[in-house]
Amino acid sequence: MPTIYVINPNSTEAVTAAIDEALDPLRSNDGPEIECLTLAEGPPGIESQRDVDSVIAPLLKRTAALENHAAAFVIACFSDPGLHSLREQSARAVFGIAECGILTALSIAQRFGVIAILPASIPRHLRYFGAMGITARLAGELAIDIGVVDLANEDLTLSRMTDCGRTLRDAHGADAIVMGCAGMTKYRPILEAALKIPVVEPTQAAVTMAIGRVRLGGAAKTFGGVP
Amino acid sequence: MPTIYVINPNSTEAVTAAIDEALDPLRSNDGPEIECLTLAEGPPGIESQRDVDSVIAPLLKRTAALENHAAAFVIACFSDPGLHSLREQSARAVFGIAECGILTALSIAQRFGVIAILPASIPRHLRYFGAMGITARLAGELAIDIGVVDLANEDLTLSRMTDCGRTLRDAHGADAIVMGCAGMTKYRPILEAALKIPVVEPTQAAVTMAIGRVRLGGAAKTFGGVP
Amino acid sequence: MPTIYVINPNSTEAVTAAIDEALDPLRSNDGPEIECLTLAEGPPGIESQRDVDSVIAPLLKRTAALENHAAAFVIACFSDPGLHSLREQSARAVFGIAECGILTALSIAQRFGVIAILPASIPRHLRYFGAMGITARLAGELAIDIGVVDLANEDLTLSRMTDCGRTLRDAHGADAIVMGCAGMTKYRPILEAALKIPVVEPTQAAVTMAIGRVRLGGAAKTFGGVP
Amino acid sequence: MPTIYVINPNSTEAVTAAIDEALDPLRSNDGPEIECLTLAEGPPGIESQRDVDSVIAPLLKRTAALENHAAAFVIACFSDPGLHSLREQSARAVFGIAECGILTALSIAQRFGVIAILPASIPRHLRYFGAMGITARLAGELAIDIGVVDLANEDLTLSRMTDCGRTLRDAHGADAIVMGCAGMTKYRPILEAALKIPVVEPTQAAVTMAIGRVRLGGAAKTFGGVP
Amino acid sequence: MPTIYVINPNSTEAVTAAIDEALDPLRSNDGPEIECLTLAEGPPGIESQRDVDSVIAPLLKRTAALENHAAAFVIACFSDPGLHSLREQSARAVFGIAECGILTALSIAQRFGVIAILPASIPRHLRYFGAMGITARLAGELAIDIGVVDLANEDLTLSRMTDCGRTLRDAHGADAIVMGCAGMTKYRPILEAALKIPVVEPTQAAVTMAIGRVRLGGAAKTFGGVP
Amino acid sequence: MPTIYVINPNSTEAVTAAIDEALDPLRSNDGPEIECLTLAEGPPGIESQRDVDSVIAPLLKRTAALENHAAAFVIACFSDPGLHSLREQSARAVFGIAECGILTALSIAQRFGVIAILPASIPRHLRYFGAMGITARLAGELAIDIGVVDLANEDLTLSRMTDCGRTLRDAHGADAIVMGCAGMTKYRPILEAALKIPVVEPTQAAVTMAIGRVRLGGAAKTFGGVP
Repeated sequence: MPTIYVINPNSTEAVTAAIDEALDPLRSNDGPEIECLTLAEGPPGIESQRDVDSVIAPLLKRTAALENHAAAFVIACFSDPGLHSLREQSARAVFGIAECGILTALSIAQRFGVIAILPASIPRHLRYFGAMGITARLAGELAIDIGVVDLANEDLTLSRMTDCGRTLRDAHGADAIVMGCAGMTKYRPILEAALKIPVVEPTQAAVTMAIGRVRLGGAAKTFGGVP
Repeated sequence: MPTIYVINPNSTEAVTAAIDEALDPLRSNDGPEIECLTLAEGPPGIESQRDVDSVIAPLLKRTAALENHAAAFVIACFSDPGLHSLREQSARAVFGIAECGILTALSIAQRFGVIAILPASIPRHLRYFGAMGITARLAGELAIDIGVVDLANEDLTLSRMTDCGRTLRDAHGADAIVMGCAGMTKYRPILEAALKIPVVEPTQAAVTMAIGRVRLGGAAKTFGGVP
Repeated sequence: MPTIYVINPNSTEAVTAAIDEALDPLRSNDGPEIECLTLAEGPPGIESQRDVDSVIAPLLKRTAALENHAAAFVIACFSDPGLHSLREQSARAVFGIAECGILTALSIAQRFGVIAILPASIPRHLRYFGAMGITARLAGELAIDIGVVDLANEDLTLSRMTDCGRTLRDAHGADAIVMGCAGMTKYRPILEAALKIPVVEPTQAAVTMAIGRVRLGGAAKTFGGVP
Repeated sequence: MPTIYVINPNSTEAVTAAIDEALDPLRSNDGPEIECLTLAEGPPGIESQRDVDSVIAPLLKRTAALENHAAAFVIACFSDPGLHSLREQSARAVFGIAECGILTALSIAQRFGVIAILPASIPRHLRYFGAMGITARLAGELAIDIGVVDLANEDLTLSRMTDCGRTLRDAHGADAIVMGCAGMTKYRPILEAALKIPVVEPTQAAVTMAIGRVRLGGAAKTFGGVP
Repeated sequence: MPTIYVINPNSTEAVTAAIDEALDPLRSNDGPEIECLTLAEGPPGIESQRDVDSVIAPLLKRTAALENHAAAFVIACFSDPGLHSLREQSARAVFGIAECGILTALSIAQRFGVIAILPASIPRHLRYFGAMGITARLAGELAIDIGVVDLANEDLTLSRMTDCGRTLRDAHGADAIVMGCAGMTKYRPILEAALKIPVVEPTQAAVTMAIGRVRLGGAAKTFGGVP
Repeated sequence: MPTIYVINPNSTEAVTAAIDEALDPLRSNDGPEIECLTLAEGPPGIESQRDVDSVIAPLLKRTAALENHAAAFVIACFSDPGLHSLREQSARAVFGIAECGILTALSIAQRFGVIAILPASIPRHLRYFGAMGITARLAGELAIDIGVVDLANEDLTLSRMTDCGRTLRDAHGADAIVMGCAGMTKYRPILEAALKIPVVEPTQAAVTMAIGRVRLGGAAKTFGGVP
């Protein structure tokens, strides 16, 4: 059966496991397989542009090996490392969670806020929003100032995410929140309950779009299988 | 089983039937039901702002009657009539095919082109792209100058769609095409084959996003069921 | 004598009366007549997208009946309900007060702020500003959180309008304020006196532009009477 | 009676005379006086940035002398020379014809085209459109390549204006045209008849807005007379 | 030896002297001469649009007299008075310090903040940023509310600049600061030390770009000497 | 003496040699050294996003080894590979030629055109222009459809560059051209002579800005040496 490979490009298995669990509702018994993988060569967390750039080569190698079994690829890091390189390399559809998370937010709310892990992530994300041409819809982005590995500290993480979310909602006018790191996945339901506005988990958003593409077009980039 | 209602707000059953068929690959045996309906009160084709505005009241009435059985609603007209009114009325997630078709194109190509039915559709669409804040990604929009009902004339329609698509691709720099009318659904595969660039059928795009939302959040607007 | 019909699409006569009075300085003894009408079928206040969409049909019917006597139409609700539908229906020039109020503010100040009635109005207005392509000039929009009918409570309304105006001026950098509801008309002079920056009453702005169009082009859409 | 002074900052009396005639329909027997003046110190035509900058000093001097009799000032050159300086100098409302002409076009059509006199005018205008924040609504600008004085050559001028207008309408998608020079005033009706889309004469647009401001606010900058 | 003339268009010699000193590191023994001049006809400080416009005529006269000895001109006022007029007049390359200061900041940081002298400078600068098309990169602009001459009061000036800089950095998200007045030149090092983010002195930025242009193209506008 | 290292990240020595020669006019006997290096690990030409991403690791390694001798780094490829990673790694100022080439064009002309090597470069560049927030100034980008190595074919290359340049100038309205590949360096003078509008060679633009930064700030990222 065709498989959507969701690649966590950091090496923290707990992040992959949380993603995998969050994707369960999207699995159907006649649908594409959804398999989550950890990129062993990645750093424990992708926290800088150097981290982003450094995982592209192993990511391309890993996905090349998976190409024949793949129906689509999802890159599960909010900086979408290697997105366009993999699109060049692969004959399959390729999705980035930042791109899909934001596009999904645009179908929910007029203004979206983003919760980043580190302050240094914000200029990188702003460059990306600019490249996407959707900056006019951004209410704001705030960082919780916690690295990827320390996201496992639940109380601190959730407390800061809630604080940032409230500020984005009340002071910046965000009508929805996009979680700006795949490592935040498990906090989505409780954060949404706290904020009372939709919270988009970007890997869920990307896999949703990947499933549709695979179902409509098989294992080809385009919908109808045209190369 | 929860049902995604796809409402064709024009009264042309052939359009609904073509949409219904195009959605087949998205149906799964354990997934949400996908049911396509024709709004009998609508005009044969939605070709003006007045047509757009005129279908909102019957659309709201029809969807209100379906609310208890609905998991989500998809409004299957490229002007997304009543999108925000229905979002206010319903406790379910609501999707517009123009919004979702364009957002999906943004996950595929840097610049998208739109093929409209009538020249008069273009200023209306431009207002919408502006409201969406994604005009910077638009390569251009061209009209085939054929009304909704006459879209059934296959040779003429396809010939003009191909001409517009080629111009958008070669002169305007579009890397993907969005079909700007639900009545064009059946031409997607052959148009994509002719143009050799991805062609997005917007109802497929919207239902893809709706399925994910329903699977992730049940019959509530937000992902996790928070009201 | 040719008449500019100013239609208040909500059913609150007091709003119409206040508009009518505010337009007095624009009346001249050789100019077009300016007649203010209340749309009896409208809700007491237009406070949601559903309210906006719901008044379009009666508005089109009412204006159709007035067409032969009309020189121009002004839709006196800050969501400009039915603006483009009426432009399609009528051979007369049609003005929306939101559009004209904002355009007038752009001739006065580099950054304008908007005072809305309800928080839910803001995303709707932001979509409109995006459609107008003038978001770069918006300093911000804040809501007084008072419904249209309760705008009659003068002390509360004025106090909140002044608070919002001060915040828009001092924290958001607005150099002028646009009142984001026709029901606020009577508060313009006192608000301007309190804020010491220009405050645009959008119905006055729209009727100003309508008078010019009628004087220059007679009862035709274009300036010179070309159909 | 309060007077709106319309200052033609070039020294060509024929331009002033044509403007004066075009403003006739806007005059009412109880309204503000509208008086058109020629700036004798100006060049025969304002065709460069240097020309624009050079007329500011005499314009400020002339308007200072008129201040006590003035209700408002209109600067009748499509580069709006001295607009913001005069706003600083004067306690009266000040209007630029480029600003008002474009804002008026935005109330008529989604995309406007501009017909310039010279190719060198275009970058200057683009800077201005950028400063106004309305570039997203610009369909395009084309030059007839005729200097201000030679605009009196009716056949050539009209022929080139019609050519540019058709290209803007058909190839650039303009739904309305703004005449980008006060010296083109007299060609408005015939150009509109030829193009079958609205053609905005910017001095008429500016005086329309000025009349409203004066009627609403007397001889003060703001609507209600607040300094 | 070819000379880059840096014209301070205000008449305050102390400002010119401070600029001259700040440019010392850019002088090389085989490079173009860099000569700083004071425009005696200018006001003590350029603090309004009228001041901006008023210095253009003497600036053009002074630079015309220098043309034969000039390799390039730099206009050392953050409103870039006469920039485009001088570009028309001169066969040499012409640089404005606002333009170059901002462009340089764009090579350093994703979001830049500007410190202005007076609140009234901000709308003028916003018009300029709009004309430059770079508003999306602006974090914000704040004024110290001190006139050009009083910038010599070191304690007050520095204290307010530091306050504005901190707010721009911490509340507005600026990653670099552009000093919005040539009179602030001498405060650059100490401000940068206080803020710990890059602070761009715009005259240094402009002269840097001018040196390259002169070295690459001699005394012609273009790089290679093409007229 | 402090050295600006200009790294050509492709392995084609002829490209490095041409850059080196083009930088000669920028060298001064008391200025920073300018040394051009070829990244041996790079592909012969950087023609895809994969090529861009693949050179980052060796680029970072090479520049790390040079850090102690470096005053600044210039990355001499129009896709600015590794720009932000190197900014993170190095304590020196880092410049990308695309960024600096475009910023320099913005100081010369209102609308710039870009000549790319391959059609596939254009979407990548558009993402970058979006990230830079300067898309409003782009007239257009056209590709000559010649790979980096074949740029050595002078007749063909120059002929196509001239064709693209003319189209950008005449049909797209470009007032200046940026050469979109470091391998085009040597064609700058002849292209400028043919087009009669300024042609920016981006490596020259970047080294110009680097020299200023080094002279003003020594071997530190910021101007004044603050870390």
